[in-house]
Amino acid sequence: MSVLIECVPNFSEGRRQDVIEAIVAPFKNRKGCYLFDSRADEDHNRLVVSLCGEPNAICDALIEAGKVAVATIDLNTHKGAHPRMGAVDVIPFTPVKGITMEECVELSHQFAQRFYDELKVPVFYYEDSSVRPDRTRLEQVRKGQYEALKELVKTDPSRAADVGPNELHPTAGGTAIGARKFLVAFNVNLNTTNVEIAKIIGKRVRASNGGFSCVKGMGVDLPEKGLVQVSMNLVDYEKTAMYRVLEFIRMEAARWGVTVNGTEVYGMIPAGAMLDSAAYYLQVDNFHNEQVLELKLLDLMQQD
Amino acid sequence: MSVLIECVPNFSEGRRQDVIEAIVAPFKNRKGCYLFDSRADEDHNRLVVSLCGEPNAICDALIEAGKVAVATIDLNTHKGAHPRMGAVDVIPFTPVKGITMEECVELSHQFAQRFYDELKVPVFYYEDSSVRPDRTRLEQVRKGQYEALKELVKTDPSRAADVGPNELHPTAGGTAIGARKFLVAFNVNLNTTNVEIAKIIGKRVRASNGGFSCVKGMGVDLPEKGLVQVSMNLVDYEKTAMYRVLEFIRMEAARWGVTVNGTEVYGMIPAGAMLDSAAYYLQVDNFHNEQVLELKLLDLMQQD
Repeated sequence: MSVLIECVPNFSEGRRQDVIEAIVAPFKNRKGCYLFDSRADEDHNRLVVSLCGEPNAICDALIEAGKVAVATIDLNTHKGAHPRMGAVDVIPFTPVKGITMEECVELSHQFAQRFYDELKVPVFYYEDSSVRPDRTRLEQVRKGQYEALKELVKTDPSRAADVGPNELHPTAGGTAIGARKFLVAFNVNLNTTNVEIAKIIGKRVRASNGGFSCVKGMGVDLPEKGLVQVSMNLVDYEKTAMYRVLEFIRMEAARWGVTVNGTEVYGMIPAGAMLDSAAYYLQVDNFHNEQVLELKLLDLMQQD
Repeated sequence: MSVLIECVPNFSEGRRQDVIEAIVAPFKNRKGCYLFDSRADEDHNRLVVSLCGEPNAICDALIEAGKVAVATIDLNTHKGAHPRMGAVDVIPFTPVKGITMEECVELSHQFAQRFYDELKVPVFYYEDSSVRPDRTRLEQVRKGQYEALKELVKTDPSRAADVGPNELHPTAGGTAIGARKFLVAFNVNLNTTNVEIAKIIGKRVRASNGGFSCVKGMGVDLPEKGLVQVSMNLVDYEKTAMYRVLEFIRMEAARWGVTVNGTEVYGMIPAGAMLDSAAYYLQVDNFHNEQVLELKLLDLMQQD
């Protein structure tokens, strides 16, 4: 394989261990499909699976796992703290290497058709795969959850399915499928207990208030640490590099004589996001990610 | 495979294309052995092969390639600008992942015995594999080259072989085998045309003059760029991080009001070297290299 995607499908089952294991099984020991993590949450009654690998292998596994979920989960009796509209609730495809966002959107559309053909569960596109400007965010697609959507899909044209009929699957509901960029969770902790400073900077750094166009952020209090935090999602780390966001926050905080105590990278991060910032601070001219031994090796192993 | 080493064997053939191809062939299309690069130089009459992968696969390929080299190269008639003592001149083993330096030394010793058993070429240990304090550097091992060594090995106990008899192979000479750390080539360019400043800083930064214990360095002129350079090898990037070396040079240069124009990373570099510096400058608390998507994927692919 020479193309790499990330995929984090969410299933509406976080309690029955046998069902969870049966859903996760198709992602294991499959050539080209690598299971990073699977986490079931009882309160949310939800299973989140993290995958990385080659598109065909991941799509094949998703169909197999989807069949298990459709056969075992009934949305009419499902209860959990997390919003949901289907047994297979959401499938995001994220380009990692050797694939453009446009190709990833095309992949998601083709997969959506196969998903409906084989599972008879209607599909709703979201994020970059959306074909309706008013329906790109998952919250818009899933508004009212399964209970409301099963009626609205029949009556409200703005809530119609993108693939399949305007009628949800009687037990498995509907599934949101879409391509989206990799999210980097990046938090900056400030040496102050004044949460107002973090809140003001959280606004200044984020797109919705005139900040960086690829940053979502807000200020939160960390009383147990005696610090405050600018908590962020970088929705396109290639356009808005981590070092620019950090130095912007440092500059804003200096207005109050406040310094950066430290930062957090939460969860997974693509190598490029860290290497970009390393090359900036180390002032490396013409650095190429292929100079990194492990990335070069990964390229060669993928050609096997 | 779960263990990763780098290996850069040097062969004394840079001119005959058919011999070069026959030596490189065993490194191609072999599971667990990945060929990064092979460069033949006519003036040096030398072939440098860059490999990365699993120790057993690399060792098997080295034996095969060594047999070709021993059968086709005659040191009695070999001429080239680069010092050499054998058809297979030097084989360095470098730990990359899942293997300690001690284990890499053990690997080199075991391989040296196999190399002698199968090729009848005596082996001389060097670097971390050396068992003689006065013979660790390759220059010490190879002093006088093939022509002198073939006599000295018989008469001078300090030049005796570590594996095999005290008589070189009649055509293939002897081979230096050893484990060593990864070398990072890191150069810092300064905004001045005064090469004395680079020379002074080159001395201050290096181990031999009281600087960092894992840095070799010197100042050189870059007249075509109108800059000067502190040119360095970091011989243990885990002990002496890149950011520390850069900031030290920046501090020294400031004494003359000189600033850092940029830096160069020449050739391959392990991910950890760049990630260490990224985590420092981005002030990331508790960053783990396993958070990097591609490194995690490489781990999983190696378990296949």
